[in-house]
This record gives sequence, C-alpha cells and structure tokens, in this order.
Amino acid sequence: MTVEGGAIHDLTELAAAPRDAEGRISTMAAGLVGSEILKIAGDIRALVASGVEVCNLTVGDFKPAQFRVPQELSDGIQAALADGQTNYPPSNGLLELREAVQRFYERELGLRYSVDSVLIAGGARPCIYATYRAVVNAGDTVAYPVPSWNNNHYCHMLGANKLEVPCAIETNFLPTRDAIIDALPKARMVCLNSPLNPTGTAFDEDALLGICEAIVAENQRREQAGEAPLYLLYDHIYWMLTFDGVEHLTPPQLVPEMARYTVFIDGISKAFAATGVRVGWAVGPVDVIKRMSAILGHVGAWAPRAEQLASVGLLDDPEAITAYHAEFKVGILDRLRRLYRGLQAMKREGLPVDCAAPMGAIYLTVRVHPFGKQTAAGKVLETNDDVRRYLLDEARVGVVPFEAFGVSSEDAKGWFRLSVGAVGPADIDAALPRIAEALRALS
Amino acid sequence: MTVEGGAIHDLTELAAAPRDAEGRISTMAAGLVGSEILKIAGDIRALVASGVEVCNLTVGDFKPAQFRVPQELSDGIQAALADGQTNYPPSNGLLELREAVQRFYERELGLRYSVDSVLIAGGARPCIYATYRAVVNAGDTVAYPVPSWNNNHYCHMLGANKLEVPCAIETNFLPTRDAIIDALPKARMVCLNSPLNPTGTAFDEDALLGICEAIVAENQRREQAGEAPLYLLYDHIYWMLTFDGVEHLTPPQLVPEMARYTVFIDGISKAFAATGVRVGWAVGPVDVIKRMSAILGHVGAWAPRAEQLASVGLLDDPEAITAYHAEFKVGILDRLRRLYRGLQAMKREGLPVDCAAPMGAIYLTVRVHPFGKQTAAGKVLETNDDVRRYLLDEARVGVVPFEAFGVSSEDAKGWFRLSVGAVGPADIDAALPRIAEALRALS
Repeated sequence: MTVEGGAIHDLTELAAAPRDAEGRISTMAAGLVGSEILKIAGDIRALVASGVEVCNLTVGDFKPAQFRVPQELSDGIQAALADGQTNYPPSNGLLELREAVQRFYERELGLRYSVDSVLIAGGARPCIYATYRAVVNAGDTVAYPVPSWNNNHYCHMLGANKLEVPCAIETNFLPTRDAIIDALPKARMVCLNSPLNPTGTAFDEDALLGICEAIVAENQRREQAGEAPLYLLYDHIYWMLTFDGVEHLTPPQLVPEMARYTVFIDGISKAFAATGVRVGWAVGPVDVIKRMSAILGHVGAWAPRAEQLASVGLLDDPEAITAYHAEFKVGILDRLRRLYRGLQAMKREGLPVDCAAPMGAIYLTVRVHPFGKQTAAGKVLETNDDVRRYLLDEARVGVVPFEAFGVSSEDAKGWFRLSVGAVGPADIDAALPRIAEALRALS
Repeated sequence: MTVEGGAIHDLTELAAAPRDAEGRISTMAAGLVGSEILKIAGDIRALVASGVEVCNLTVGDFKPAQFRVPQELSDGIQAALADGQTNYPPSNGLLELREAVQRFYERELGLRYSVDSVLIAGGARPCIYATYRAVVNAGDTVAYPVPSWNNNHYCHMLGANKLEVPCAIETNFLPTRDAIIDALPKARMVCLNSPLNPTGTAFDEDALLGICEAIVAENQRREQAGEAPLYLLYDHIYWMLTFDGVEHLTPPQLVPEMARYTVFIDGISKAFAATGVRVGWAVGPVDVIKRMSAILGHVGAWAPRAEQLASVGLLDDPEAITAYHAEFKVGILDRLRRLYRGLQAMKREGLPVDCAAPMGAIYLTVRVHPFGKQTAAGKVLETNDDVRRYLLDEARVGVVPFEAFGVSSEDAKGWFRLSVGAVGPADIDAALPRIAEALRALS
C-alpha cells in the first residue's frame, strides 16, 4: 500500500496559507467564539512546559490518577471489546442501554418514561446540540440564566437570539421564578443546569417549582393561542453529585405536566469520572427525542458500542454505583471542603477572598477581590483577568473567571470557578498557603 | 439515592402525547427525511423476528462473526482503559493521534500535511457535518453526483441548495469533468466519494484529474474576482479497500494546488471493520480544520480517549495493517466475487440481472430488471421497491434500491446496492440459488 519512494507531495504550505482568506469560512463558523477556558489552559500548559508545578483548578474534568471510572465500567468495556462488540450501534443507541436508562430514571429519580423517550449519544454535549437543533429555529429566542455553560455558543450556532438572565450570589447564581418570568413569553426554550457548572450550587424546591409553574402556565396560554410551546432544556449531568443533604430535584417530579416540555441532558461523564468514554443520553417528549435522534444520526455523534454495553451493567447495578460514589463523592467533597475551609480562614484573616458552600458538581464558587491593590512588581490589579494571571504566576493556581460563563465583566468582577476533579488533597493543601501568601504580598 | 417507595411519577403519557403537535419541532428537524435504509432494515427485522433466515445485504456495516477489528486495535483499547485513559481528549483529538494520521498520510498516500491540518472526531460522519457547517452558508449551493450517500440530508440540515449531478453505469456512476463542469460556477462545495458508497466503484485518473483541474481553474477565476472559493469534500473512507489493481487516487496527489480546497474525510470505521469504535478524522486546509474543530467541540462529537490512543498504535504499524488487510480485504473480495459470478451466471442463463465488477468498498452494483413480469401470486413488478420486496419475500435476500442514494426513480430503475460486510460466503452461496429461483418463477 505504501507509496513508491520519493513520491511525496508536500502540501503543508498550500494547506496552511489560503490566498483568499475572505469568504473561506461560513458566517456561522467565522463568528464562533473560542472557549475562554481553552485559552486559559494554554497559559497553564506554557507554565507547566517551563517546569513550573501548577495546581490546576480550571478543568471540568478528572485526572485518572485522582479519580478512576468504576472498575465495573472499565471491565465491561474491555469484555465487550474482547467479545467483538465493535460494529455500529443503532443510531438512537442500543435498546439495552435505552431500557437501562429507563429503569435508572424510575429507580433513582422516580420518573417513569417510555423507552421511546430515551436517546443515547456520544456524550451529553451532542444531546444539548440536538435539543437546540430539534426545537429552535434561527431567529427564535433562547433564555438562560448566567453564569451558564456554553449556551451562548449554541445560540450562535443556531442563529438564535440570546436572552440572558443575570443571577447573583444571593440566589446561589440560580434563577428564581421572579428573575425569569419576563423572559418566558419571548422564549422558545429555557436552558437550566443544576447542579450548576460553574458554581457548584443547586436549585432549591421553591425556585425550581416556581419556574416550572410559570413554564406550564405560559404553555397553557400558548396552547390556547395556538402557539408553539416553550421548552425546558434541563441539563442535570451532575445530578448524582450533590453533597451535604442537598437533594437533586427534577421539573417533572415537582410538576408532572413539565414532562411535555422538558428535555433532560445526562450521561456517565461526570457522575462516573468518564468524560473521555463518551456515553450520554437525553430523556424527553417522544416527538422531540425522535427528531434529536434523526439529527444525531446524520451528525454521527454516537456512543461507541462497547461503552454502551458496559454502561448497561453499571446503571443496572445500584450497589456498584453506591460503592463507587461512597469513594468518589467523598473524594470530591473532601477537596471542595479543603478549599472552602482554607479560603474561609483567609477571609477571617482579612484577606480579600470568600466562597460559597459546595452543594454539588465538582466546582466551588470563589470570590477574590483584591481590586485596586498593587503587586510587588508594581502592577495594580483591576480586572478578573489580572487576578487570574496573578494567582497563576504568584501562587501557581489556575482558576477560571466567571466571564468564561457568559457573565458580564461588571457582574463577574471578583468571581471565579475552582474545579477539583484533576487535583489531589495534597495539591490543594500545598496551594492554599501560596494563595494566602500571594494575597498578603499585595499592597 | 433510590427514591422512597411509591414516589414514582408516571410520565409516559405526558411525554408521549403532545397536545399541540403544531410547531413543536424546528423547521429543519420537521423536514428531515428519515433514512431509506433504516426503513428497509425494519422490514428485515420483522421477517427475522418471525423466524425467517434472511441474507441481509443492506447494511454498510460488518458482523463481528464475519469480520473483527484488528487484534492490535482491540488490545490497544483494552490496555488504554486498564491504564485509566478515560478522561477528556483534547477537543481536536489527541496530539499523538493527529501526528499518527499525519505520518500515515505521508507514508501511505504520499501526502505531507502539517499536524494542524488534522482533526480527530468520533467517526467520519461528524467530519462531514463539520465540513458542511464550516464552509457552507444557508442558501449556498452544494453540488454532488448521484448516487450519493446522505449529501441530501446534510444540505437540508444546512439550508443549502442541492445541485445533483446524475451519473450512470457508463462512467461507473462517478462524475467526469464534463458531467460536473456546469455545476462548479454555481457551487460553494462539491462532494465526491471514492470508492463510492453505494456502487463499489472508484475514480480513474482521467476523471478525477479532469475534475481537479476544473476546480482549480474555477478557483483561479474566483480569486481574481474576489469571490469565496469552491471547496471539495473528498470522502475516501473506503480508500484502503480497493481490489484487483484499482489504485486509490487523491486530488492533491494529482493536482497539489487542490490542497487549498480539499477536505478529506476518513477514519478507521470501514478499513478496519470498526464502525462502532467511533474514530474518524478530517485532513484539510488549516483554517477550515480549525473551524471544524471549534464546531465539533461544541457538538461534542469526540472519539473516546482510549480508542484514540489505540488507533495510534494501529496506524503506526504498517505490518499489522498489511497482515490484517491480507485477510480482511480477501474476505470482502471473496464475497463480492461470489455474488458477481453468481449473478453473471444468471445473466448468461437469460435471467434479468447484471452487475458491475467490484473495484472497492464493500458494495456491489447490481441490476435487477424483471419489470412487467408477474409473480406467482399475480403481482406485476413495476418499481424498484416491488423488486426489493419480492427478493426479500421470495429469495430472502435484502437489497437497497438506488433511490436510497438520492437517485430519481427513473434513473434508479433496476439498480440496487448489495453490501457484503455482514454475511459469510456460505450465506451468499445459499442465497444465489434462491435469487435465481425467484427470478425464474416470474412469468
């Protein structure tokens, strides 16, 4: 098969340097903004490459050295591969896994759906994208609270209008009925996420119930007016990761009528530290799910077959899940608490930091507000990016400002996401004094 | 975690029966046509479920009982999983795999690209979708020959105008310069596929060279006029599967300047019987690849991490590939030849069948033209679907009419795709007499 000696066409320059830069890219693609977090990751990579050890609290991921997937999942994939399970899965997912998700939702969430309400995909992201494409037309409005993860990008990809509802620490950065009520009549879809990336906070019953009642009321109005419904994209990918008695809530559990309008986004990625395994699912109204399946069939964003089979075994084994979470969740919470306690101690010392108590996911909301102070090098810290850069350079700690989650610079000022999936307790214990030292060094 | 006894919300009816069907789905999603092949698969499933054994020549897939993935690939994935390689890959793919693809293209195709020209995704389909989204605007025209695989669906998803160029048996169902020249000035992108799904035929040098020269000439004109370029999506996912001295050709190999405009679609799915493993890649101009990466980052159509790592080992091992193909390709060709010879014998007998010699992929182009004849049950066969249904019911052989590949009923009349990845030689040997018998039984 190998080409004959010498017959190599060097295309590097031709492929690198388009003569006619104008109009080479679609309008949508040209306007797509890169991820802020990836840019920050670039800074960290550069530091690490220069030999500096960094406590990297920026990635919404897990380091296998800290958190492995459940042994049962890994073994199950390997067994399926050894068994030759390498051909196409059905484009809506293996029936066995769709049924396992169905059982899982009934057993763990008390939600009974038909199997036609379940769609498997290669992660939760494809499910989000498919929900947008299945119900949103260009020019439609999509409402979501900020901070928010990536809804701005999905709106851009769909040509949808963003209707951002700013939320603040007083409501744990989550919306209430009052905050969102004016947005509902204008919107085609509302996107909620709880436990919330980036804040690690979760809905309480009052807030979610109020929002659900408002969505149902809006839909009753629309139905009488013969208008298209208002959907809720409910991303609860972190739902198994709640702490300290926080109970995860779902819209149809509070208001069953919400099942008509709610598309759940979920998967194994976060609850089982399996971000690179690529198994996610959506659960929702049958007609919407069917269209999402047709869309993802063409996009080809399928979960690999062996991984789907192994996920069946995992979801069907509550004891294995409980045993896994007994370690995994304790490990996550331990890291969050170390950070929390360390930062609270700094606050008591009078340093310009604060943080919210962890409720769920793998994130801690932290406030660092040394604005107007001056570094030893004479630089005055004025923006979140100044603070991020200072903490990285002086304390060797990587954090993500809330601007990366659609928050305006004004509202974001002082607020950061800290993520603990890729660090160990010792990394945190070592980093805390460095943060305190860096803050004390400001004048 | 389990819900308290009895607290089950039965949502099956609420989620199944939307009151207000109108306007629940986006215009794009509502207009998305389901796959013809999946409908045919439904017929076959029904027969199989009723206990009938069917020789299923409809699926573009492999049965593991017939064709396994390379042992090295399976072992590599298992080893990577055991090693805890389960966290996020970079959204454009592991650098190791992008470099391995780079080496692979230089070694096997004589094409030297920079690593920035390589994007990894969860299969070849996401790469096709991303190419469309990266360069095509709604309202743009996309030209492609028919028969064609799924370009009609991608055009629909993008809101692009289809410009279909009908191709016939005289040119092996592939376009020539003359066939496509009028389409070029109107198009934003041309989509070609060789070896071609559904026909199993491949470009000869004259045809591809002529087309490439015409695309370059059109782009020179556009450049002078300051117009956006004309791209070529070159899907060569079957390129390693050519037979009997057929040499796979690439546009930049014939006309290096084509590297400015060509996006290659490729992956391990077909060449290594690994359709359910979900590793594909695109290779093309850096600016386009970068945008495709941003798009797929949000869509989340990533290849799983362990599978990416294992693919590195496979692509870097020409001896393992050669050894694997020595069995795999021979097995595919053996099946194609059995079908070819059997059908040619029927033709000599005077039965209304014919077929094209296999050149590549896993498909055979077959002509069955008993139109106007009558079955024992008194039904006159008038359409391709009549013939398909008759062969399924009487000969227990599943085939796909060319209508499923965008061909008009008139042009498609008599033409079928037969796919051999999911059947054994014995299945074919047993099916051939049934086909002959069914055709003889017509009057």
